[in-house]
Amino acid sequence: MTYCCGILVRDGLVMMADTRTNAGLDNISTFRKLHIFKDPGERIMAIATAGNLAITQSVISTLNEGLEDPETGERETLMNAPTMFQAAQRIGRAIREVHKLEGNALRAEDISFDVSFLFGGQIKGARMRLFMIYTAGNFIECTTDTPYLQIGEHKYGKPVLDRAISYDVDLYDALKVGLVSMDSTMRSNLGVGMPIDILLVRPDALDAELDYRIEAGEPYFHDLRSRWSAALRAAHQSIPRPPYGNVK
Amino acid sequence: MTYCCGILVRDGLVMMADTRTNAGLDNISTFRKLHIFKDPGERIMAIATAGNLAITQSVISTLNEGLEDPETGERETLMNAPTMFQAAQRIGRAIREVHKLEGNALRAEDISFDVSFLFGGQIKGARMRLFMIYTAGNFIECTTDTPYLQIGEHKYGKPVLDRAISYDVDLYDALKVGLVSMDSTMRSNLGVGMPIDILLVRPDALDAELDYRIEAGEPYFHDLRSRWSAALRAAHQSIPRPPYGNVK
Repeated sequence: MTYCCGILVRDGLVMMADTRTNAGLDNISTFRKLHIFKDPGERIMAIATAGNLAITQSVISTLNEGLEDPETGERETLMNAPTMFQAAQRIGRAIREVHKLEGNALRAEDISFDVSFLFGGQIKGARMRLFMIYTAGNFIECTTDTPYLQIGEHKYGKPVLDRAISYDVDLYDALKVGLVSMDSTMRSNLGVGMPIDILLVRPDALDAELDYRIEAGEPYFHDLRSRWSAALRAAHQSIPRPPYGNVK
Repeated sequence: MTYCCGILVRDGLVMMADTRTNAGLDNISTFRKLHIFKDPGERIMAIATAGNLAITQSVISTLNEGLEDPETGERETLMNAPTMFQAAQRIGRAIREVHKLEGNALRAEDISFDVSFLFGGQIKGARMRLFMIYTAGNFIECTTDTPYLQIGEHKYGKPVLDRAISYDVDLYDALKVGLVSMDSTMRSNLGVGMPIDILLVRPDALDAELDYRIEAGEPYFHDLRSRWSAALRAAHQSIPRPPYGNVK
């Protein structure tokens, strides 16, 4: 399992991914799922991946090697995509390429071809954007109404995002709420686990403001987890008890 | 969709269920999913249901008509079950009966036979118990380690239960936390909706302490929702911002 979250606010972009992979509960490993592509001053992009690791890694490798443009013969990569939209289309194309190569063999083994990607970033001169790309290679884009997207085990961590994230929150507050969302997910699903990779990008910085791995036991995250637990306890304690009478 | 939650603490039993049913987003109705069976002073039991409504209603009707004991010819109902364990077994048997009658026809229509039940209550002279019964008619029982069970859309509302419910919480606090859990679920899944049916039972009372329907717009629940939202905002605001430096 996996949990990845992307938040795009006025102040910038937050992307985060856990690193736990599992093939059954008895086979758990750590793999990076947040992949950064950058040429500082020109462009910065990141992909977070969920789903079958063999597939998602093949998609990333396909993108790194480049997809051949059938007309010009040019290798199309993320680094030479003219726009974020066309870069997202290239990720979709890479998923379809891998599906063409692997889909039948996987189906024969009853393994579903099921992946999803978050793709965020900015190319110089254009606005910062965030997309969610589905198994079929189609995608949606994040808007200011709901300025976040999630992939993987998204349900446990959604209520706090719904309530706390708006387009106007500070970038580090968005990171903080994202980490609370990650914490809620990790508490309820053992398939999501430390360390957590995070990326912060400010608009027009065209480089990472923060590219960091939170390791297990890291003091701030540990403190956030216990403060959040204490705050939740205080929160429900501050609500009056139900006044409902004895209605037999 | 559905969300039902049962909480069994030292102080008693809380059961709650939403009432929304849907056959597609364009066909939404209100149906009671919390069913109470009682003989005050002797026994009180309740069933909360999730899954295909035709199946769950048939299971309840089967239980009301009684299952014939093949040896004695006696009609076995919840009201004459000698113990809560045997009552839970009867619910399992009723599910299997309905499956025998309907399973093939449903499969032919590609409708999955998928239901789950919470079953809680007390019979005079024995302890209060809470069970979760699966499609196959097998079941688990709630213990003091994790004193709650959920069926239906359980993920959104689980983090608050995990953090706030222990065996020692007051009965009305358990109700309150259950309502917060219901609220979180309703915010994220339109398939879960008002009104909400709730039941509270104190140990050895053998009758409902509270048997109540919270209608849309009900002042306490409305207040709980806005207080919880405000408290969550305050909670994440009280956590310091991440101190992570610029690690390019």
